[in-house]
Amino acid sequence: MTTPPTASATPVATPAAALATDAVRLARAYLSRVAEPYPAALAALIAEVGPVEAAELVRSGEVSPSVAGQTSARRAEERAQADLASIARVGGRLVVPEDEEWPRWPLLALENVAARRCGGEPIALWVRGPHFLADAVERAVAVVGSRAASGYGEHVAGEFAHGLASAGLTVVSGAAYGIDGAAHRGALAACGLTIAVLACGVDTAYPAGHQGLLARIAREGLIVSEYPPGVMPARHRFLTRNRLIAALGGGTVVVEAGRRSGAKNTAAITQALGRPLMVVPGPVTSASSIGCHELLRDGRAVSVSSVAEIVESVGRFGDDLATEPAEKESELGAPQGEAMRVYEALGRRNGVSAEAVSVESGVPLQRVRALLPELELAGLALHVDEGWQKLEMR
Amino acid sequence: MTTPPTASATPVATPAAALATDAVRLARAYLSRVAEPYPAALAALIAEVGPVEAAELVRSGEVSPSVAGQTSARRAEERAQADLASIARVGGRLVVPEDEEWPRWPLLALENVAARRCGGEPIALWVRGPHFLADAVERAVAVVGSRAASGYGEHVAGEFAHGLASAGLTVVSGAAYGIDGAAHRGALAACGLTIAVLACGVDTAYPAGHQGLLARIAREGLIVSEYPPGVMPARHRFLTRNRLIAALGGGTVVVEAGRRSGAKNTAAITQALGRPLMVVPGPVTSASSIGCHELLRDGRAVSVSSVAEIVESVGRFGDDLATEPAEKESELGAPQGEAMRVYEALGRRNGVSAEAVSVESGVPLQRVRALLPELELAGLALHVDEGWQKLEMR
Repeated sequence: MTTPPTASATPVATPAAALATDAVRLARAYLSRVAEPYPAALAALIAEVGPVEAAELVRSGEVSPSVAGQTSARRAEERAQADLASIARVGGRLVVPEDEEWPRWPLLALENVAARRCGGEPIALWVRGPHFLADAVERAVAVVGSRAASGYGEHVAGEFAHGLASAGLTVVSGAAYGIDGAAHRGALAACGLTIAVLACGVDTAYPAGHQGLLARIAREGLIVSEYPPGVMPARHRFLTRNRLIAALGGGTVVVEAGRRSGAKNTAAITQALGRPLMVVPGPVTSASSIGCHELLRDGRAVSVSSVAEIVESVGRFGDDLATEPAEKESELGAPQGEAMRVYEALGRRNGVSAEAVSVESGVPLQRVRALLPELELAGLALHVDEGWQKLEMR
Repeated sequence: MTTPPTASATPVATPAAALATDAVRLARAYLSRVAEPYPAALAALIAEVGPVEAAELVRSGEVSPSVAGQTSARRAEERAQADLASIARVGGRLVVPEDEEWPRWPLLALENVAARRCGGEPIALWVRGPHFLADAVERAVAVVGSRAASGYGEHVAGEFAHGLASAGLTVVSGAAYGIDGAAHRGALAACGLTIAVLACGVDTAYPAGHQGLLARIAREGLIVSEYPPGVMPARHRFLTRNRLIAALGGGTVVVEAGRRSGAKNTAAITQALGRPLMVVPGPVTSASSIGCHELLRDGRAVSVSSVAEIVESVGRFGDDLATEPAEKESELGAPQGEAMRVYEALGRRNGVSAEAVSVESGVPLQRVRALLPELELAGLALHVDEGWQKLEMR
């Protein structure tokens, strides 16, 4: 069983180092079909009695009213075998918490109190693609934003995703039009790893215009969903899905978000998870950046302008610090610097006497006489017949 | 003696409610010519013995070595009368701390420990324009930025200055090309009040291309400098001048700043003064916004995207809060909302039975039967022959 390196796009035949028994996988496949994510009461039952026993109880209807509320409508849907066959037909697999491939640590963040408001750890994940999911998300960043993106936003999303992927980070997004699509494409263009988290079955090409993109991600990256094959996208499923994007990315970059963009939902979840929330600033004249600027102004997000800044924000162990610009001068300057004042008082075209320089600069004559040779040594002043002349700074 | 309202451009004949005696004004005019700003030791001497006595001591050379260092080069320059005549010829005046017009409180900020690194309160201010300086800066904002501004930067500077001036705030800037010029013009276009703080004499048109703009500001706004008439601009004078821009504005908005822009100096001084520092975000692809984004990322500045946000940041007494966007929904959403799930499961073109809706949505049949009439009342569902049909959300 091979484990491909995290950020390589090299396909492997069977990435899932499965530990789960068939019974467990079948039970979770059944429960994944029966309960609409996120079913908190059912999850608690699974945690208590295990997935196989929980599936039996759900089937028989011998469950608490709250679990019944989450399972009674579809408990007769016995499609576990068929769903596993469906996912196999598209080259995919069902990854369950009992598997080695399960991204345990990233998803654990969903279990904190604030995060549970948007749903806890999934019952199972339907996955396509030639990478080991747990490794793929070890160094990952979510790059999200508006569907109604501007040219600027798509450009920046693509560039940043390309840079992140080149730096060995996995780019997680939602495969929507606009920013999401640009992010996936940027990562693919860098031959890097990208994960599309869907609000529908992983066999469903949604949005339709991204059929080709999704096919490519299935071949070179990963497609992940907690919805079984064939499930269609719905409004509430996007919100439920967003928590997985936030959880699988080590931090979230919002490239563009209008005032009511869904990306603001992913941003709020990222905060609830305690993960770094980053936004890309944009023109204040652009409606597509309003949501980003709101997050900045509220102090909820940090501004990122480059790949290095993103890597620094999500980096661990301090080994990913963005390099400081080489010249970091004192910004308060030295307005009283006598040498500067003497320099400014020198003649531009003709020489000026030291006395005239003293009056012009307000620097005492004795100091002027001491400073002029220093300026000459520094290549900033020239002694000519009539006095001292200025040489331009390089 | 009339005091024009702060933010009106109505000219008045003699705005200075002078309290200073002629002797004091002549002494400060002399000292202003003799010492290059900022002369800390001389300022301490003036504070100790008063300006008239200080001028006498400087003239006679009977001063400490540190004061001598700041005054010996020019102490023979007896031009006080001539300078006052010069400023009068261009319709201006010398405003001194003993005058009622002196902006006491704004300039006092220069006396704190951090701020004194860039120079304390000026010895005197040379002023042109038909407004009472102390009133003009009562509600003022500095709007500054790169000379090498982008079209975006100049547009935003002009729009923001127009909006601030319309809201009754005075726009303070440095009359440079680029952002400064756009800010002054925006304020003038709104028939508002603008102050140009110069690094040269107020009778000097610098930069030359802003001769017309400066003439208009002298007629409708205020031109202020601590340099006597005829003094030419010099590099160090811009840095010294920047502290006055920061002090006279109640806060500073940096619209655009490259990595090495002088606006970063004004930003640093603004912080040292303890005044609100605001930056306008811009495209991360623009070199003109790099300095702004650095200030944001370092947490040194707050992001502002609108006039209302600037007014909120500089506003006092909580009466200038930017209005919240009307709809402030919960951004974590309600992904488990059963009503939403039922709604999404309705037929788009044909009716669907409650049973089918239950299976599709995963919501128990009984709850579906309760929710459908609620959706109908809300105008979101329609009961048709075959069952329930979806009505699009408005």
